[in-house]
Amino acid sequence: MDKEIFTNLLLAKEFKAVRSILRVMNAVDIASLLSQLHDRELVQAFRLIPKDQAADVFANMSNSMQAKLVSVFTENELKELLDDLYMDDTVDLLEDLPANLVTRILENIQPDKRNMINQILNYPEDSAGSIMTTEYVSLKKTMTVAEAMAHIKVTGIHKETIYTCYVLEGRKLIGIVSAKDLMTMDDNMEISQLMETEIKSVNTHDDQEQVVRLFSKYDLLALPVLDMDGCMVGIVTIDDAMDVMEDEATEDIAIMAAVSPSEKTYFDTSVFEHAKNRIPWLLVLMLSASVTGAIISRYEEAFQAIPILVSFIPMLMDTGGNCGSQSSTLITRGIALDEVHFSDLFRVMFKEFRIALIVSAVLALANGLRILLMYDNPGLALVISLSLVGTIIIAKLIGCVLPLLAVKVKLDPAIMASPIITTLVDTCSIIIYFGIATRMFNL
Amino acid sequence: MDKEIFTNLLLAKEFKAVRSILRVMNAVDIASLLSQLHDRELVQAFRLIPKDQAADVFANMSNSMQAKLVSVFTENELKELLDDLYMDDTVDLLEDLPANLVTRILENIQPDKRNMINQILNYPEDSAGSIMTTEYVSLKKTMTVAEAMAHIKVTGIHKETIYTCYVLEGRKLIGIVSAKDLMTMDDNMEISQLMETEIKSVNTHDDQEQVVRLFSKYDLLALPVLDMDGCMVGIVTIDDAMDVMEDEATEDIAIMAAVSPSEKTYFDTSVFEHAKNRIPWLLVLMLSASVTGAIISRYEEAFQAIPILVSFIPMLMDTGGNCGSQSSTLITRGIALDEVHFSDLFRVMFKEFRIALIVSAVLALANGLRILLMYDNPGLALVISLSLVGTIIIAKLIGCVLPLLAVKVKLDPAIMASPIITTLVDTCSIIIYFGIATRMFNL
Repeated sequence: MDKEIFTNLLLAKEFKAVRSILRVMNAVDIASLLSQLHDRELVQAFRLIPKDQAADVFANMSNSMQAKLVSVFTENELKELLDDLYMDDTVDLLEDLPANLVTRILENIQPDKRNMINQILNYPEDSAGSIMTTEYVSLKKTMTVAEAMAHIKVTGIHKETIYTCYVLEGRKLIGIVSAKDLMTMDDNMEISQLMETEIKSVNTHDDQEQVVRLFSKYDLLALPVLDMDGCMVGIVTIDDAMDVMEDEATEDIAIMAAVSPSEKTYFDTSVFEHAKNRIPWLLVLMLSASVTGAIISRYEEAFQAIPILVSFIPMLMDTGGNCGSQSSTLITRGIALDEVHFSDLFRVMFKEFRIALIVSAVLALANGLRILLMYDNPGLALVISLSLVGTIIIAKLIGCVLPLLAVKVKLDPAIMASPIITTLVDTCSIIIYFGIATRMFNL
Repeated sequence: MDKEIFTNLLLAKEFKAVRSILRVMNAVDIASLLSQLHDRELVQAFRLIPKDQAADVFANMSNSMQAKLVSVFTENELKELLDDLYMDDTVDLLEDLPANLVTRILENIQPDKRNMINQILNYPEDSAGSIMTTEYVSLKKTMTVAEAMAHIKVTGIHKETIYTCYVLEGRKLIGIVSAKDLMTMDDNMEISQLMETEIKSVNTHDDQEQVVRLFSKYDLLALPVLDMDGCMVGIVTIDDAMDVMEDEATEDIAIMAAVSPSEKTYFDTSVFEHAKNRIPWLLVLMLSASVTGAIISRYEEAFQAIPILVSFIPMLMDTGGNCGSQSSTLITRGIALDEVHFSDLFRVMFKEFRIALIVSAVLALANGLRILLMYDNPGLALVISLSLVGTIIIAKLIGCVLPLLAVKVKLDPAIMASPIITTLVDTCSIIIYFGIATRMFNL
């Protein structure tokens, strides 16, 4: 839908046409169309959305748009919206709204829903409990397929996902039945006969990364969440798991580039916030790079005698840094995908050592030949090639060990990625380089 | 399930017990248990899996395990397995098997399935067509809900996902009905009344990244795939979309670290392959770092006069590289998530410029003070601080422009990440540094 046409229709008060347009559009697309409007038009347009779509459109809006709408809604509008909003979307809304609006919302919500929301808000950030919804279909094991289908017909309309149904005994989860089974099995079969009892579940306090791992390992559509006593309290649905997966990858990538991760998009983050997210690591890394500088100044006499030595510093530092971050990145990703574990430490080190031997042989040869051709100085070629071999081996070992050590001490391995490794490897490469050079040239 | 106990039961020929154990286990877990067995036990154990689980377990195995099994299967076993295997899993299997086994499989497959497989194998790698399955539930618009449910009961058992049903007219897709609607709507309602006609779909040749984007934007469970004539040929299911999402993130992360991406896990990749994936970029970057070296050697007289200048090279290079890769990484991720586009070029540049001003002011101040305290040399402090400001501004601009330019010329923006940026920024920082130093100190 073209934004210009839409705004013109709104301005011309052609509300019938606007309503018709909104009726055939998808909730996600309506949300992104509305995000381009000015505040007044936004509110006007939102009120024209068909009632059964409004909550869905609202759930797909950005926090700032939601806050704008909530602040102008009448009590009645707010009540209607909150009644239609899923539990997990309501919680998301509350987590990001300014305090005065939160109070308004809690006042307008049904008391039982309010209690549940307060409980979910108390789960640790990024825990399974904080991303779950409490709306799911529960069945009894003595029901037949036909009874279960009739039960879903009555209660299922407001449940976020009905494709996995949960068989409860009291509040204990004893089995799972898929909608596929209900739709394809004989009507008279009893639930107890067809339910799956080998159940994958998480605890409310489990990390959301654990949730994502189970989803992608077992190709689930929903995952039950149990409390400390093993009672069922909610489910995580696959759309939320996918969002978490995307957020976690974005977070890892940011950390690997020495940026404090942020949940906002690039453009939603202000210049000042961007600077704040980037400065701390830059400062730390800048000061540690000064250590490398201090080491270099100890070899002043060496490069005063042979000034050409200085010109190889960038090549050695860059190659070392690149080799180190290749290893650390692959290992970090392997850890994230649950393919590499701390117990593999020695296996990884041995593998990286052998890779380093091949890589450094090729690079040292290429560089040695280049120097021989350009400077006709076999001694220099040998010094640089040997330094390269030493640097690459050290770099690959540091690159693979640090992320695994981070896991061991419960740090995010992504933090050990390129920038830190580069700074560490720099120091090592300078020591190796001048160590070899001063010895070979008797400086 | 403990591997030791399981192998002992197998060796003791306690097949009844093994069968019982396999019956209560999940297909994914059986596959990972079997992956720890030796070849002979693997085949033996696979034959003990309940028939209705065998294909599912097989689909969850690694390619090397699948190849082992296929090579020892009798014709009959192979036929049975292929009958139960979903179309997309069969295609995955064929894509990775050695040629002689592929022939055996194609001989044992039903002719109509074979034709479809050949067609799917012909779609470009990483296209929607190559990851789709041709099994889906199709309905007619004149059916009632009750008729649709009866239709699914008969045909749905072998369909990979039945939660989204497709309403076809001829071979054209005219509407979508969710299983949720079927389960909750009145039995006598006609499909045409409840079907959704605003349909999100992809073309067989669309890139799989586009598929993933639609899944996460619209929270879909399945996405229809249309051919060039707009006829429906298959669907992509959410479990496959999640796999693609994970693979794409892994690929981007590898490319950002200057490693040629590989679809295998860290340990499945041999030492030699690892070296092969890493050497090319290292060579390119090493040679381009030599350019920086060559530039340094032009300033030999400068650092012979003031040797301390050399010791600030690592700090300037590292800070420049880190600043550049911060920007390039955030922009690259923004592009991947469809939040930043080439048309935003100037907006991004202006934003990065302002960020660079704040960041460089803080870093230059911190570093200037440090130098003043350590060396008591205001001139040196000024030179370094000014160089830092220049380097950071250039680094941030290069870091944000290159990924966007890459998109424009249809290159993967991830390729422009840290290593390339670092090398480019190095050269700039050296030129800025010695340019300022020679001028200020009249060298």
